[in-house]
Amino acid sequence: MNDQPSPRMPVAELQAFVTSIFMAAGLGEDDARTMAGSLVAADLRGTHSHGVIRLPFLVDRLLQGGANRQPDIRVVNEAPGTALLDGDRALGALTATRAMELAIEKAATQGIGFVTARNSDFIGTCAHYAMMALPRNMIGIAWTNGFPGMAPWGGRSNTIGNNPIAFAAPSLSHGPIVLDMALSVAAGGRIRLAAKNGEKIPNDWLVDSKGQPTDDPQALAAGGALLPLGYKGYGLAVFGEILCGVLTGSRILSEIPAWFKDTDSAIGNGHLHIAIDIARFVEPEAFKLRIDGMVSLLKATPLMPEVREILLPGERAWRTQQQQEKDGIPVPLPVAADLQALARRLGVKAPFSAFYSFL
Amino acid sequence: MNDQPSPRMPVAELQAFVTSIFMAAGLGEDDARTMAGSLVAADLRGTHSHGVIRLPFLVDRLLQGGANRQPDIRVVNEAPGTALLDGDRALGALTATRAMELAIEKAATQGIGFVTARNSDFIGTCAHYAMMALPRNMIGIAWTNGFPGMAPWGGRSNTIGNNPIAFAAPSLSHGPIVLDMALSVAAGGRIRLAAKNGEKIPNDWLVDSKGQPTDDPQALAAGGALLPLGYKGYGLAVFGEILCGVLTGSRILSEIPAWFKDTDSAIGNGHLHIAIDIARFVEPEAFKLRIDGMVSLLKATPLMPEVREILLPGERAWRTQQQQEKDGIPVPLPVAADLQALARRLGVKAPFSAFYSFL
Repeated sequence: MNDQPSPRMPVAELQAFVTSIFMAAGLGEDDARTMAGSLVAADLRGTHSHGVIRLPFLVDRLLQGGANRQPDIRVVNEAPGTALLDGDRALGALTATRAMELAIEKAATQGIGFVTARNSDFIGTCAHYAMMALPRNMIGIAWTNGFPGMAPWGGRSNTIGNNPIAFAAPSLSHGPIVLDMALSVAAGGRIRLAAKNGEKIPNDWLVDSKGQPTDDPQALAAGGALLPLGYKGYGLAVFGEILCGVLTGSRILSEIPAWFKDTDSAIGNGHLHIAIDIARFVEPEAFKLRIDGMVSLLKATPLMPEVREILLPGERAWRTQQQQEKDGIPVPLPVAADLQALARRLGVKAPFSAFYSFL
Repeated sequence: MNDQPSPRMPVAELQAFVTSIFMAAGLGEDDARTMAGSLVAADLRGTHSHGVIRLPFLVDRLLQGGANRQPDIRVVNEAPGTALLDGDRALGALTATRAMELAIEKAATQGIGFVTARNSDFIGTCAHYAMMALPRNMIGIAWTNGFPGMAPWGGRSNTIGNNPIAFAAPSLSHGPIVLDMALSVAAGGRIRLAAKNGEKIPNDWLVDSKGQPTDDPQALAAGGALLPLGYKGYGLAVFGEILCGVLTGSRILSEIPAWFKDTDSAIGNGHLHIAIDIARFVEPEAFKLRIDGMVSLLKATPLMPEVREILLPGERAWRTQQQQEKDGIPVPLPVAADLQALARRLGVKAPFSAFYSFL
């Protein structure tokens, strides 16, 4: 059974289900739809670790009081090209969506919008917000700080966030160019998965609690630390703390609790959203045509042995998205079972028994 | 003699000498002073690879016609928060300085300034421009594309720039936090130095002309390629090409000649300069105090074996700068000999015989 592909659910149906769950957990309809959109968008691009699998944790944040069900997200400081929002402890995707919309609005008149947020929460994938700029012929950037899950360069404890950042730019015929990355060598999720499957990991992903390199993924749970992508990854993480945290008056480093564990606590992290209006620099269609040319030049690079193709950032995710929009999003049994249980708890009708009759 | 420390030259004396060289090569006095300032600033922070050692190449660019001695750097596209400059083939530090000044000016009224440049040249260290924002209580960012000296992820030829980026933010008592990094695992200069000294290099810096990992630094000159800092470093390099190149209508990738070789050709690269006015978000003194707190938290991280201290980005450079402002900048004999020869060629009086009587 493990070898069979998971059944696929139409995107609209999954979106409607997740929306109804958020409404049952106390969100207004618009906010529920925004939250569902942020999770389904992650699944659509194949980032299932940040998709509907996170729904139970987010619902817990609403029900346990860590997040505010009726938040008043508002601008607390503003200049023509910039703003600082207070998220009022809303779920992060709500504040991040508002911030990105405001950045886009500002870019339309100022050329650039640079909007930050404080008093926020886990925002999901940064790519989702950066990509909001694309239909407006803008370049988007999103960056967030988060709970300390990585060691600084030279350290052996997790005392800094691996503060993900995303960039998105449009092309004419290649799909959007989208880079979405955390600043550790490997994501914590990949290491936990290797631990679960009893596999070894490369020696440069992790140090054990004594600061020694290890290929044993179990060392993470036993007090080990995730290594940064060299001193450069560490340096970017420091600027993630500065731009998303210090500049916004948010919590930083060890001040930030883990959103998926401390579901009754405010997270208080911050984030940053930038929109850049291409038309204020060059003609947007010429820009996109030139991006296509850049893609062709890069793909013409002679390949390393056993490499089939040079990929652009976000190219694989774009292919996945196109396929899933047509065929639906795969919902593996453990996820379906979790969501079915959550739906039962909240008195919402769940669609998963259509695939898994025993649920 | 190799074991003796190099003699040190007072900063003002070196600055005056380099200024007089640029004037003799045809720059106006203001431009000559700006150029000298950009090189001496790199030496001051200990980045000697980008300091006065580059002066002969830059002079060649002026004398061979690759760079314009009397450029008309001008704004060709503008919005309240943004601008695109045309560098008119000026030496890059002139256009970059103008762009950063304009970004700072815009940030003072709009909260942010985002200024790009096209038709430019090699700009030196990005840190120099990012740091121009600091005395105004602003955060600075600078990014440039350049000649293709790195392989894209999965490729085995140098077809993308290692497009350096710098961030700078002020602290209260720790010196500025400054990250200045290229996007390869190791700088090409370090590999050429290892080749010169007959040393081996780590296996992940380079591939040979067949795409095989190698510890032989000679493989670079023999058609090898510099590896990016993982697919994340490659992804950032792609966005360096997009933001500095495509967005500005500049040359990208293999369109860009090597500034230090093709001294009679226009380079035509682009760059990006951002200034963010801290006061539009939080009170600047509170910001700086909080940066100090961030530094203390990071330094309290338990250390890896044999690590003495967690350093912040730019901390070592700041210590070097403070020492050299007091004691002067070391000028090794080969550099002094090169500069003495250059001075003789241009009919400028050089100060190096005070240290090396035989020059």
